[in-house]
Amino acid sequence: MQNTLTGVLARVNSPEDLKTMSFDELNLLADEIRQTIIKRVNVTGGHFGPNLGIVEATIALHYVFNSPVDKIVFDVSHQCYPHKMLTGRKESYTNPEKYGVFTGYTAPEESPHDFFKIGHTSTSVSLATGLAKARDLNGGKENIIALIGDGSLSGGEAYEGLNNAAVLNSNIIVIVNDNDMSIAENQGGLYQNLKLLRDTNGEAECNFFKSLGFDYHYIEDGHNIEKLVELFSKVKDSNHPVLIHMHTIKGKGVQQAELDKESFHWIIPGALDNKPSSGAGAESYDKLTADFITKKYQEDKSVVAISPATPGVTGFSKDFRAKAGMHYADVGIAEEHAVAFASGIAKNGGKPVLGIMSSFIQRAYDQLSQDLALNSNPATILVFWGAITGADATHLTTFDIPLISNIPNMVYLAPATKEEYLRMLEWSVDQKEHPVAIRVPFGEVISSGMEDKTDYSVLNKFKVEEQGSDVAIIGLGNFFHLGARVKNLLAEKLGISATLINPKFITGIDEELLESLKSSHKLVITLEDGVLDGGFGEKIARFYGTSGMKVLNFGAKKEFPDRVPLEELYERYHLTPELIVEDIEACL
Amino acid sequence: MQNTLTGVLARVNSPEDLKTMSFDELNLLADEIRQTIIKRVNVTGGHFGPNLGIVEATIALHYVFNSPVDKIVFDVSHQCYPHKMLTGRKESYTNPEKYGVFTGYTAPEESPHDFFKIGHTSTSVSLATGLAKARDLNGGKENIIALIGDGSLSGGEAYEGLNNAAVLNSNIIVIVNDNDMSIAENQGGLYQNLKLLRDTNGEAECNFFKSLGFDYHYIEDGHNIEKLVELFSKVKDSNHPVLIHMHTIKGKGVQQAELDKESFHWIIPGALDNKPSSGAGAESYDKLTADFITKKYQEDKSVVAISPATPGVTGFSKDFRAKAGMHYADVGIAEEHAVAFASGIAKNGGKPVLGIMSSFIQRAYDQLSQDLALNSNPATILVFWGAITGADATHLTTFDIPLISNIPNMVYLAPATKEEYLRMLEWSVDQKEHPVAIRVPFGEVISSGMEDKTDYSVLNKFKVEEQGSDVAIIGLGNFFHLGARVKNLLAEKLGISATLINPKFITGIDEELLESLKSSHKLVITLEDGVLDGGFGEKIARFYGTSGMKVLNFGAKKEFPDRVPLEELYERYHLTPELIVEDIEACL
Repeated sequence: MQNTLTGVLARVNSPEDLKTMSFDELNLLADEIRQTIIKRVNVTGGHFGPNLGIVEATIALHYVFNSPVDKIVFDVSHQCYPHKMLTGRKESYTNPEKYGVFTGYTAPEESPHDFFKIGHTSTSVSLATGLAKARDLNGGKENIIALIGDGSLSGGEAYEGLNNAAVLNSNIIVIVNDNDMSIAENQGGLYQNLKLLRDTNGEAECNFFKSLGFDYHYIEDGHNIEKLVELFSKVKDSNHPVLIHMHTIKGKGVQQAELDKESFHWIIPGALDNKPSSGAGAESYDKLTADFITKKYQEDKSVVAISPATPGVTGFSKDFRAKAGMHYADVGIAEEHAVAFASGIAKNGGKPVLGIMSSFIQRAYDQLSQDLALNSNPATILVFWGAITGADATHLTTFDIPLISNIPNMVYLAPATKEEYLRMLEWSVDQKEHPVAIRVPFGEVISSGMEDKTDYSVLNKFKVEEQGSDVAIIGLGNFFHLGARVKNLLAEKLGISATLINPKFITGIDEELLESLKSSHKLVITLEDGVLDGGFGEKIARFYGTSGMKVLNFGAKKEFPDRVPLEELYERYHLTPELIVEDIEACL
Repeated sequence: MQNTLTGVLARVNSPEDLKTMSFDELNLLADEIRQTIIKRVNVTGGHFGPNLGIVEATIALHYVFNSPVDKIVFDVSHQCYPHKMLTGRKESYTNPEKYGVFTGYTAPEESPHDFFKIGHTSTSVSLATGLAKARDLNGGKENIIALIGDGSLSGGEAYEGLNNAAVLNSNIIVIVNDNDMSIAENQGGLYQNLKLLRDTNGEAECNFFKSLGFDYHYIEDGHNIEKLVELFSKVKDSNHPVLIHMHTIKGKGVQQAELDKESFHWIIPGALDNKPSSGAGAESYDKLTADFITKKYQEDKSVVAISPATPGVTGFSKDFRAKAGMHYADVGIAEEHAVAFASGIAKNGGKPVLGIMSSFIQRAYDQLSQDLALNSNPATILVFWGAITGADATHLTTFDIPLISNIPNMVYLAPATKEEYLRMLEWSVDQKEHPVAIRVPFGEVISSGMEDKTDYSVLNKFKVEEQGSDVAIIGLGNFFHLGARVKNLLAEKLGISATLINPKFITGIDEELLESLKSSHKLVITLEDGVLDGGFGEKIARFYGTSGMKVLNFGAKKEFPDRVPLEELYERYHLTPELIVEDIEACL
């Protein structure tokens, strides 16, 4: 493999430029793309294994099909770097000064070769089926292609899409990129069938895809451009639904990544130069969680940790999983099942603790509502990363408060410190009355230094941390600490000794406390680390609606910011102590 | 079939009472149960075909298994009448005075033989897998059974459940009740495989269930108690996941219901005596919708109506469907796919109109957010039945406002009249900028008698219907008319000439108008036909938080009322003109 770009990639500015190349040139191109990804992602961080595994297939796709007339939808789109490099965006990979110009996901605003902004899994087949349906209505002839990984097939939306795509009665080409891996190991009965199909070169009669009605094709070497071109050419312009089952190697070309596929799915900058940072020693909320669960299942055999295929988010490390045995269940990328499964466990005397990222809990609203809350089963849901961040628009973590807190029967808790978090966790796991979600604090672990002895079975009891007057600051969860800073600045700048309140409960308000504030306060401000619309602060505003109390709500605007730096968002939303104090001053 | 109960059913007060009966007695019992269902449902209305089809299987289940130690989970649970009759609740079917005592769904508060409150589809396998997991953690030995219809298998949650259940490595028995029917016809590639399996007596090698790893058993006659008992006995206490594919006849025993399975899925009182009421002639919002779409696709070939297996809710009658051809797509019970599919269609130049019941749109939150809103594709979602009603807790239609309106980029509209609805529909289908949802008015069609000429591309513009002073009434959608009655009563009782506002937009507020109210109003009240928490009124309260304006929000409390009469709910929530005026008076 060469270390410098000798020029094949340099000649490619659009897919058109591939079409006159020989296979030798295409193979050189693959090498160059792979080298470029390795170098670039080791500097910037990003999805590593998925992109290395799809280099040849992407070249073959663009060689055979006529993008953007033919339309390729990349599932979850964390394997789209080669595609971006072939569709006019290679500088964002070859030129360090432009590394940050384009996102890591498909993005229609960047290129006509991208059709959807995608970052959640299992959506491509349904979206592609829609593209195909519109084509058929309008009498078009283009090919519609969905590229989906085997890991994404565990999600219900992918299955719903396949079940419908198979009966489309016109052109759609689903390519299953089977690298025998999800983010972590694959989970579920389907994967035994994929293995059987790989082991029989696609010949086994019992075939998940054929059972759904697809015209099925298997290709063993998904890195052989010539063979890929041959197969893609054969199915091009098909007048019926086709499924290609393509075997590839995740992390292809980098030995570490091929051997440890989970660790190299996504890497931090410099990961190839050192051992990936394990962050050993540093305290974190995910590790606190794993340690708590480990201790808990040793005392109580009915405890089980659940992850929907994202154990890395929640501290369920390889070591944790190996030790936990039956006290850990990865259900694959299947958030709906995860919530219903937890409800079933709780119903039958188990103690489930589902750890999930804020952005992904929204894949299971109906399950939270119907399977869990309506049944009042005492499952525990830990919502990680619930906070305003500078993330991609596909991975915002600001919507979990409106999502969860407006469901009846749910108890949604917002701890501000390590001690509160652990106390709530203990209470939640052991109680038998409520479905409980906990918004795990985001960021550095903050200790109050004092044991929390709160009885959380007394619901909706806010805590007055410091009694003052005139202004009351209700700082929720992560933003309790922002509230403390606001209090200090208020004292300093305006000479106001504000009351500081830690509400702890998101799903209900402490009416008695709020009522009592009326006598000596003119203004209540609320601070929440999430979107304002439908959130916590609006409930406080409603409560005081007919009183003379003024209310100011601080939080995120209802929007999808895309990689906007956090500092900029804080300015935009007035979430710095200085801006908050200015707003307070303006309305006093 | 006998017409009187000669006593077999009379002897059954719990499943124990079955176990000593002969097959002749069990067959008599089946006849009696069937007769009872026919008589009772023809009086009360309810799920008809599904219950008639499951009589024998339910008897066999309770004969073989030891409920409630062994646990049976009924998917969607609209086939649970025979189960209820065998588990101590038969009087609710045999005694007209007690017809209303028990719900039409499984309900743990009614009986220890029911494990979950269930009314949404495709959840049973995941819930049962949870029961089984808890059993394994605690060292239990009971059988866990999920009974799921073929129609429910189109839902992604069912697939996620099957994929996980299959690798449970312990006892779980999934029974697929295959009557070759969803609520309407089945949709999707899977159903060709089910047909192949039925046609080959379960012998075909290409087998969806085997591909997921299940130990598969087929039974052709799901009405033969003796054969069912034989098979259930064989798999009882299995130490691994088993799937029974059972062929039954929906509506078994009633010729009309067997011949027209869709019409007799759920019937209104008296349906067996007359032809089911088609409501011909009466104007309704579902018919207006179907008529609009019919006219629209005749003018514009890119228009397509979509239903997730509930065409009856949205006016997509058999006649509509037959005429619409490719302009209608039923995607099966697959709400996630439905939304993503609509987004894909809109992206490629089609004009999709997805009709869905409020209670079921919540099955697709992430698809609304990620697949649709984040991509700003101009699909139209029609949300039917969004209103406070006396429905079962499983079918509440009050949560769609917080669900949809807090998603960025979505435009959620609330028409109050037929004219507004049709104008919004026309605008939404033709525009290219926004994902739009419309909360279709609920109940009788109300005409303003005047053409609506509003330009809805000017977002968030509220309409002042009558200018007054002191009190402003903002009545959203259905509740605009309640607002008009409040205005009249305010004039009559308090001599106040209130301002009456029709906001039309749920997803944003008309800040200019709200600002202007400050000069001549002391109080703004909001009326919304849905839950208050996270809803529309709270946004108005937030807006006025720092002003002197008082705000009173009226709507439903955050709770899951279960078949509470509407009048009682209106009293509870203060949603009558009299109670509202009292509340206004109290805070002026």
